[in-house]
Amino acid sequence: MHPSLREAVLEANAALFRSGLAAFTFGNASAIDRGANQVVIKPSGIAYTALQVDDLVVTDLDGKVLEGTRRPSSDLATHLALYRAFPTIGGVAHTHSRFATAFAQAGRAIPCLGTTHADYFRGAIPVTDPLSPDVIRGAYEAGTGEAIVQCVGSHDPLEIPAVLVDSHAPFCWGKTVTAAVETAALLEEIAHLAYLTLTLAPGTEGIVTVLRDRHFLRKHGKDAYYGQP
Amino acid sequence: MHPSLREAVLEANAALFRSGLAAFTFGNASAIDRGANQVVIKPSGIAYTALQVDDLVVTDLDGKVLEGTRRPSSDLATHLALYRAFPTIGGVAHTHSRFATAFAQAGRAIPCLGTTHADYFRGAIPVTDPLSPDVIRGAYEAGTGEAIVQCVGSHDPLEIPAVLVDSHAPFCWGKTVTAAVETAALLEEIAHLAYLTLTLAPGTEGIVTVLRDRHFLRKHGKDAYYGQP
Amino acid sequence: MHPSLREAVLEANAALFRSGLAAFTFGNASAIDRGANQVVIKPSGIAYTALQVDDLVVTDLDGKVLEGTRRPSSDLATHLALYRAFPTIGGVAHTHSRFATAFAQAGRAIPCLGTTHADYFRGAIPVTDPLSPDVIRGAYEAGTGEAIVQCVGSHDPLEIPAVLVDSHAPFCWGKTVTAAVETAALLEEIAHLAYLTLTLAPGTEGIVTVLRDRHFLRKHGKDAYYGQP
Amino acid sequence: MHPSLREAVLEANAALFRSGLAAFTFGNASAIDRGANQVVIKPSGIAYTALQVDDLVVTDLDGKVLEGTRRPSSDLATHLALYRAFPTIGGVAHTHSRFATAFAQAGRAIPCLGTTHADYFRGAIPVTDPLSPDVIRGAYEAGTGEAIVQCVGSHDPLEIPAVLVDSHAPFCWGKTVTAAVETAALLEEIAHLAYLTLTLAPGTEGIVTVLRDRHFLRKHGKDAYYGQP
Repeated sequence: MHPSLREAVLEANAALFRSGLAAFTFGNASAIDRGANQVVIKPSGIAYTALQVDDLVVTDLDGKVLEGTRRPSSDLATHLALYRAFPTIGGVAHTHSRFATAFAQAGRAIPCLGTTHADYFRGAIPVTDPLSPDVIRGAYEAGTGEAIVQCVGSHDPLEIPAVLVDSHAPFCWGKTVTAAVETAALLEEIAHLAYLTLTLAPGTEGIVTVLRDRHFLRKHGKDAYYGQP
Repeated sequence: MHPSLREAVLEANAALFRSGLAAFTFGNASAIDRGANQVVIKPSGIAYTALQVDDLVVTDLDGKVLEGTRRPSSDLATHLALYRAFPTIGGVAHTHSRFATAFAQAGRAIPCLGTTHADYFRGAIPVTDPLSPDVIRGAYEAGTGEAIVQCVGSHDPLEIPAVLVDSHAPFCWGKTVTAAVETAALLEEIAHLAYLTLTLAPGTEGIVTVLRDRHFLRKHGKDAYYGQP
Repeated sequence: MHPSLREAVLEANAALFRSGLAAFTFGNASAIDRGANQVVIKPSGIAYTALQVDDLVVTDLDGKVLEGTRRPSSDLATHLALYRAFPTIGGVAHTHSRFATAFAQAGRAIPCLGTTHADYFRGAIPVTDPLSPDVIRGAYEAGTGEAIVQCVGSHDPLEIPAVLVDSHAPFCWGKTVTAAVETAALLEEIAHLAYLTLTLAPGTEGIVTVLRDRHFLRKHGKDAYYGQP
Repeated sequence: MHPSLREAVLEANAALFRSGLAAFTFGNASAIDRGANQVVIKPSGIAYTALQVDDLVVTDLDGKVLEGTRRPSSDLATHLALYRAFPTIGGVAHTHSRFATAFAQAGRAIPCLGTTHADYFRGAIPVTDPLSPDVIRGAYEAGTGEAIVQCVGSHDPLEIPAVLVDSHAPFCWGKTVTAAVETAALLEEIAHLAYLTLTLAPGTEGIVTVLRDRHFLRKHGKDAYYGQP
């Protein structure tokens, strides 16, 4: 595993904590080296403030530990399911950020209520179906990953780079682990806006598709004109 | 473009970020030199923390770039529409500040619910009509400006120096770019108060006109007695 | 006016700003020297960060300026009405703190919903009646003071040391200006708790009198046993 | 009383204040030395910022002061009732943290709405019955402790290490005073999440038992696989 990828994962985990997206030992971030099919992830239950680069754990795509002496995050199997299903992503970030988690706990998708949302996500942030008791009792973390993959369905995972796991919290991703953490931060921002909007005006519906796509595509489309060339 | 106006625009953009009114790369501020009919505005999609005075872009009132190597804010055409329609204003600030944006996403005006509001805005903060699909597909940013101008209507733009764009966020202005940023901060404060009031007591109506004007005019009228002579 | 009382008023105004109870130029604090019948108050519309001891204004109980070159707070007449009506108080603090202001804007008293409230206020924080149009057009600030005095009625002003002015914001007081500022901070805390309680469970009613008095009197009664002897 | 236990209690009280769980002089933390049957607790009504190790008070399990010159916390009798009833706990923390207190004021238990809650508490955080007028007038603080003990009932107190006292606020505990403070922080976090969830979607019900236990037991069961071995 290349040292710079380890450093990026360490910094991504530190950023989750620093930005308030992951308190206590909640949350975790990982990255994949697609060439080597190796994943580097936060160890389980280590305080963010104590985390060192040597605490990180490297595994293969089946979860076999290749490097490191720590036990990997208990959510490893969820990350691996995402890397296997979404070949264009390079990083995953999981948080219990408050507003996104509130929607997950309510079992409600975050509708696209405005252009702030549409600037980053091309549609509602979906919520998974509840897991079956058998999955919960069995391969729970892998089953969580499969529920997320099913939820994304035929969407481009980079157009809706986050899913809420029912009764749990969000999983986010991006081309890199740094992008995955930025997705987590943007998701929390739009969840916050959506919470305020829906508590102020409970029946508010999503914006029209033409407005949603105008904003998404002015930033991300092939004719994007937002940002510098 | 006079260096001091550039400096004021740089500082105004920095203030938007510092005060939490504009996170990520949301938002932008501009100023106009009325003598030269030149506008200076934030470049598109540059992080606030990286912004330098040389990144600012100077254009004429038709949006033609006169100075600078950056692409101007994608919202430039909205700013220009406001400068053309409101000859008394000298600066514009656009944010996605949370509480004001929640009202915009809900498509609801912010009613004047108390004297804090009336101290700065002589009436409700209006919300634009939704833009038509044709405008959204076409000259979207200019159309946004026109919707704001229509929304202000016959009001003095300095008595209600902010409008919520439906499904989007607020645009604010003032005699200077510094004043426009202060308007944005005051708008967020009164949106916050209105949110708390309306979630606590949903049917609350605006205050009586006599109280609204007493407060607005004791600060802004010709017989104002608030502040120092 | 004794220098130490001026210093206490300067520090009280600084504390209002520092603690977030008064943003922008909202709010003001004053103290009275009962021996000399002189009041020292914040000047009108001066930024808290710029405020110097020489900016403070000393007046008599009719509002005649005795010392200072600044115009006194536009709310001076409200403060004076309180000092005249409540002989046991030594300081007044006015803020637009968010949660207390939300209740004022909603025209709702803050019910005593728990022991945190009862530890400091022996009953609901009342809200004034709306002012009449004649009072609003006329001696508005003095009329605000009279509405507060009427609202306190036969209560001991030191047992309920705060009132919400309808459609406006709270006025608080105490034996000293320092105590008045502490009242303002405690009021905001219990308004925050009441807001959360009432948005979570809208019909919640005030606690029983026996519990309210047990808490109030264990801190403030003649047999108080809270704190050090 | 061993100096290190005093230090832990001083630090626990400091942490309550620093973390925002206890503002003003709200709240208190204590620890028990089970060998000596001695309890060390915060003194009553001393500002957290002024608190020194010598201000702490040591008592026996009947509340008799053994060491210290200060009056102990007025809530001492509540702490003692918990130490007598729950032999496995070593520390108690009482706060008026906002979201937990809002549930207490509403007289509502905090349902287990998601895995964040289930990671730390094996079920709803219960709320006591209202105290009777006789108890409120009489041995109020001891009666509060008895109400908490009754509320825990036959549960393992380390599986649900917190109770909301009706119309008051939470009491939390743990194997040590440090753990009790961590419980208080986690309780506030899950109360915050529950508040957001229930104001967004008022009818939300608790998660299924199988999911709750999967999360609780992966951290705390005999086959726990969360964290490092």
